[in-house]
Amino acid sequence: MTAPRRDRPVTRTDVARRAGVSSAVVSYVVNSGPRNVAPETRERVLEAIEELGYRPNASARALKLGVSETIGLIISDITNPYFSEYAHAIEEAAAERGLSVIFTNSTLAVGTEREVIYKMTRRGVDGILLASIVDDPDLDTARAAGIPVVLLDRARPVDGHASVGSAFRDASRIAVDHLIGHGHERIGLVTGFTGGSTTVDREEGWRDAILAAGLEPGPVIRVPFTRAGGFDAGRQVVQNADRPTAYYVLSDQQSIGFLNALHQAGLQIPGDVAVVSFDGSQESEFSWPPLTTMRQPVREMAHAAVELLDKREPTTHIHHSFEAPLVVRQSCGCS
Amino acid sequence: MTAPRRDRPVTRTDVARRAGVSSAVVSYVVNSGPRNVAPETRERVLEAIEELGYRPNASARALKLGVSETIGLIISDITNPYFSEYAHAIEEAAAERGLSVIFTNSTLAVGTEREVIYKMTRRGVDGILLASIVDDPDLDTARAAGIPVVLLDRARPVDGHASVGSAFRDASRIAVDHLIGHGHERIGLVTGFTGGSTTVDREEGWRDAILAAGLEPGPVIRVPFTRAGGFDAGRQVVQNADRPTAYYVLSDQQSIGFLNALHQAGLQIPGDVAVVSFDGSQESEFSWPPLTTMRQPVREMAHAAVELLDKREPTTHIHHSFEAPLVVRQSCGCS
Repeated sequence: MTAPRRDRPVTRTDVARRAGVSSAVVSYVVNSGPRNVAPETRERVLEAIEELGYRPNASARALKLGVSETIGLIISDITNPYFSEYAHAIEEAAAERGLSVIFTNSTLAVGTEREVIYKMTRRGVDGILLASIVDDPDLDTARAAGIPVVLLDRARPVDGHASVGSAFRDASRIAVDHLIGHGHERIGLVTGFTGGSTTVDREEGWRDAILAAGLEPGPVIRVPFTRAGGFDAGRQVVQNADRPTAYYVLSDQQSIGFLNALHQAGLQIPGDVAVVSFDGSQESEFSWPPLTTMRQPVREMAHAAVELLDKREPTTHIHHSFEAPLVVRQSCGCS
Repeated sequence: MTAPRRDRPVTRTDVARRAGVSSAVVSYVVNSGPRNVAPETRERVLEAIEELGYRPNASARALKLGVSETIGLIISDITNPYFSEYAHAIEEAAAERGLSVIFTNSTLAVGTEREVIYKMTRRGVDGILLASIVDDPDLDTARAAGIPVVLLDRARPVDGHASVGSAFRDASRIAVDHLIGHGHERIGLVTGFTGGSTTVDREEGWRDAILAAGLEPGPVIRVPFTRAGGFDAGRQVVQNADRPTAYYVLSDQQSIGFLNALHQAGLQIPGDVAVVSFDGSQESEFSWPPLTTMRQPVREMAHAAVELLDKREPTTHIHHSFEAPLVVRQSCGCS
């Protein structure tokens, strides 16, 4: 069923004529109100809209209706369960304040991140939550559009911006102290390639705990922050005859791949190699063995971030740091 | 630094005056073009924007710039890796066509799904991709706005709409045939509560293969489509002395929880209970043991769905069905 060819755009009046109703009734159907329309009439209008190919101008409509109480969320990798669970928590926190969330992936590329921020500002969001892949993201386009930005997933305060994040260094100290409490004297580290402060702070926390206990830092393995990266790290551990008895692994995704490589080689976890992880994603609960992990409090952080945006006060220099508690399961040697 | 009180909105002219530049220069900074602005001038304009609290009208700007080549994606649960990986694939397919994606969760509630569709249409997206939680979603608001909808995750054609989806029933036959090939004569089913056609078709495929081999269908366990649901199913299997030697589990998330419950009870997979799963998410590759699973071809489906939207032809009644190939790993008894 194609629209008849015509030289001018289809108007609401055309639809009204075709459906045998008033132009106001077409408007009620298009805008789902303010008045109700009888089901048969409504169906007739919908058919006319389809037959004629009528398309109300969407942006003009958005303007008129003022539907713009929306937060833009930019994260680097939606396929990372930590981020998808964080995104979900942000949607819930926003919904409680009557705000909608639109979401875009910056797909692990700085050029793309800048583009995505630019598009978000042009799309007319009221504020942006950004989990940047770099410590010093380019926020000029958002500033130019007068749109507030709150940075997610930050280890430390960021000059000129509001931010939230876990206390990465403190949490890491607790994680490694827990392994030391199990009697481990050589504790290795599986970390990532990014030199961002969240990574650096987790590495420092590992070192802090080891040095405070009078031990020597174990070997460091650097792999991507992915399951496949963790698998590669596990392969290296398996092949190392002089391996540590425990590893602190900086993300749940890496831990999942790490466990898999150890299983493939017939090693026992925690008997041969104990593991404490970081993130506390849902995946960590159902791995084998279940991961002892530092739980990043995504719900609490999501609420704080949305509140910072929603307040619309000058938010410069505010940083909310959140404790990431130890969740004890089996990979560390407990129970 | 707060904006001075004033009775009228801050205008571009105010910003220009404060920054000591022409109004055109302010426009270049706000719109990132069309002309370049010297870095110091740019910084001065940005500071004036911040000091005065200038906020260009976002919707008016969107209208003027025509930034609306955007697809709205509505999925039920972003924390399900199958959907987050699908969302990522859709972003990639859209980007290849120069389209942006904005995304919203319908959070497993029909009322919310209708609301989300309504908001998407008002936001002026050019088309909607919808993975509905029901077989017969309410699309009247999208129809009324003249916005095309393509349904994702469909088992069968949908009257009046374009759709894509895996060949759920065929894939399930192949999954269960594979377990039969391993010599299993009693094969149970772990399924979900939804009575939707994707679930029904997977159940039918399980039954087809069993009956075709002259066997009796094994027990059916109904739990939510989550890791926790799969864990509960596994607990039931553990407690059943007369349990089947193999299970077909209808989602990777359920399989992950299912494996965990079997491990906790000291059962061997695949020795005591073999498992074939469904979805082929990244999680399935790194579980222990790695899951043999039917891989839903999310990349191919994402491309097809975006293409259907992008064509803007009358797409009624088109259904693209995709083969979901068997990915052989270890949970079935292979290698």
